Amino acid sequence: MIDVNEAIAGLDWSKEPQGLYAPIAYALSSGGKRLRMQLVLAGCRLVGGDEQDALPFAEAIEVFHNFTLLHDDVMDRADVRRGKPTVHIKWNDNTAILSGDQMLIEAYRLLEGVPQQHLPQLLRLFTKTATEICEGQQYDVDFEQRGDVQISDYIEMIRLKTSVLLAAALQGGAIIGGANEAEQQALYSYGIHLGLAFQIQDDLLDCFGDPKTFGKAIGGDISCNKKTYLLLSARDNADEKQRAELEHWLAQTEPSEAKIEAVKQLYVATRAREAAEQAIARHTREALDCLRALPRNDETARLEQMALSLAKRNA
Amino acid sequence: MIDVNEAIAGLDWSKEPQGLYAPIAYALSSGGKRLRMQLVLAGCRLVGGDEQDALPFAEAIEVFHNFTLLHDDVMDRADVRRGKPTVHIKWNDNTAILSGDQMLIEAYRLLEGVPQQHLPQLLRLFTKTATEICEGQQYDVDFEQRGDVQISDYIEMIRLKTSVLLAAALQGGAIIGGANEAEQQALYSYGIHLGLAFQIQDDLLDCFGDPKTFGKAIGGDISCNKKTYLLLSARDNADEKQRAELEHWLAQTEPSEAKIEAVKQLYVATRAREAAEQAIARHTREALDCLRALPRNDETARLEQMALSLAKRNA
Repeated sequence: MIDVNEAIAGLDWSKEPQGLYAPIAYALSSGGKRLRMQLVLAGCRLVGGDEQDALPFAEAIEVFHNFTLLHDDVMDRADVRRGKPTVHIKWNDNTAILSGDQMLIEAYRLLEGVPQQHLPQLLRLFTKTATEICEGQQYDVDFEQRGDVQISDYIEMIRLKTSVLLAAALQGGAIIGGANEAEQQALYSYGIHLGLAFQIQDDLLDCFGDPKTFGKAIGGDISCNKKTYLLLSARDNADEKQRAELEHWLAQTEPSEAKIEAVKQLYVATRAREAAEQAIARHTREALDCLRALPRNDETARLEQMALSLAKRNA
Repeated sequence: MIDVNEAIAGLDWSKEPQGLYAPIAYALSSGGKRLRMQLVLAGCRLVGGDEQDALPFAEAIEVFHNFTLLHDDVMDRADVRRGKPTVHIKWNDNTAILSGDQMLIEAYRLLEGVPQQHLPQLLRLFTKTATEICEGQQYDVDFEQRGDVQISDYIEMIRLKTSVLLAAALQGGAIIGGANEAEQQALYSYGIHLGLAFQIQDDLLDCFGDPKTFGKAIGGDISCNKKTYLLLSARDNADEKQRAELEHWLAQTEPSEAKIEAVKQLYVATRAREAAEQAIARHTREALDCLRALPRNDETARLEQMALSLAKRNA
C-alpha cells in the first residue's frame, strides 16, 4: 500500500524562487492524517483498481486541502496549525496569499497526471468541489452576521465546507478504479454523511469533550458564540425561560468559565446535546447504508469501521 | 467577430452566496482592453480556426488575468483599479482573498468548455503559465530586497510576470484553431517579445511620459526606487560620479520633484533611456520576425500593427 506521507514528502518544492515554494513545502510538511488522500486510494482499491493510478488525484486533493487551510488561516488570523506557526506568521500575509495561490495551481498540475481517459470527468469533479468549498467558507463567514440561521442552513454549510471534499476524494478514486455510476454515487453519499457526522461530532467535542484528549481548550465555540449544531438546536428547542437565559449569555462577549458552564447546561436542558448525538447516529447510519451498494471486501469493511469509530471518537 | 466585453458581461455571477460572487462580477465589470482575450481569438482566427471554439479558453485567460490583478491589489495595498475602488477596499481583505481564489477556480471551470481533443494540452499550457506568473510576482517581490539584480534578471521577471500570459493566449488560440507546432511556437515567441517591449515601454512612460496622456503621475517608479530597466541600466552604465549621484538620490526615501528630475537627467546622461529605447526596438523587431513563420493574412497584419504601434504609444 502507498505510504501517503512518503508520497507527499516526495513532491519536489526545491525549485526557484524559494520565496514562493518554501512556504508550500512547509505547509505540506506538518503531516496530519492525510485522510482525504487515504479516501482517494481507498475508493480506487474498493472497486478493484490499482491505487497507483489514483496517486496523482490523491495528491491533488491533499494539496488542495492544505491550500484551503493556508488561506483560511490568513482569513481567521490563526497563528498555529498542528503545533507549528502558520505560514502568514512564519512569513507574512502576502506570502501566504501568493504561495497559497500557487498551491491551488499545483493541485491542478497534479491533475494532469490522472489516467487520460478520466481527465475530463475528474477535472469537472475537482472544480465543482473546489467551488463548493469556497461557497461553504463564504456561508460560514455570512452566518457570523446573520441572526436567522436555521439548522438546515448549517447542515448545508458544513456539507459544502467539509463533506464534499471527502465525498469527491472517494468518488474520484472510484472513477479511476473503474467504478460504475451507482458505485460512484454510493461512495460520494457515504462521504457526505461521514463528513456531516464528523463535523457535528466536532461541535460536540468542542463543548463536551475531555480536555485531556481533545487537544484544544473546551468551550471555544461557546466563547465566540459560534452558530454550531448545538447552539442552533438549543435556540429551536428552548422554552421561553431557557431562551432568555441563552440570549443573556450570548450577550456576554467576554469569555468566561461561567458562560461556558451555563451554556453547556442549557445544551443539556434543551436537549440540544441529545439532538446532536442523534444527528451523528443518523448520518453514521446513512453512511453505513450507502456502503451496501458496494462490493463487500476489506476496503468496505474499513470504511464501515471508519464511520462506526467516528461516532465514538473523543479527539 | 466576438464582442469580448459582451462575452465577459454574459458570464453569470448571480448565484449564491453573493458574498462570494458579487466581488467577482465587480472585478470583471471594470472593462479594460481585454487584450489577452483578444489575443486568444486572434491566434485562433489567424490559423484559420473558428473563434467561437476559442471563446472558453479566452474567457478562462481573462478571468485568470483579473484574478491576478485582484490578489496583486491586496498584496500591493492598491486602493484604485481602473478608476474604481479595489475589491479589498470596497469589501475587505478576506473577501478579496476568497473571491480571488474562486476566480482562479472559475478560470479552470471555463477550461472545461474547450474542444475536448485539446483539453490536456490547453490545461498544461494554462497551468504552466499560471505558475510562471506566480513565480514572476515572487521575483518582483524578492527584487525589492535584493541589491544584486541584473538586467537579465529583470527581463526574466517581466517575461514571467507579463509576457507568458500574452504568449499563452496566442498559443492557446492557435492550438484550438488547428495550428501546427511551428505556428504555435511563432505566436508564443511573438507574445513574449511583445510583452517585453510593452513592459519596458511602461518603464519609460512612467518616467518620460506625458502626464496629460499617461494617466498616472510621472516618476512613481523613481519615487519608490523601483528596479526598472532604466534604473538597472543606469547603474550598469554610470561612471563613478554619476553612480555616486544616483546612490545619493536612491537614499532619499522621501518623494520629491527634485529627486524625480535629477534621476531622469541621470537616465539621459547614462544613456539608460537610450538603452531602454533600443531594447524596445529590438523586442519589437523580434516580435515582427516571429510573424514571418505564419500565414500572411489580415490577422498577422493586425499583430504586426500592434507591435509597431506599441513602440510609438504614449499611454
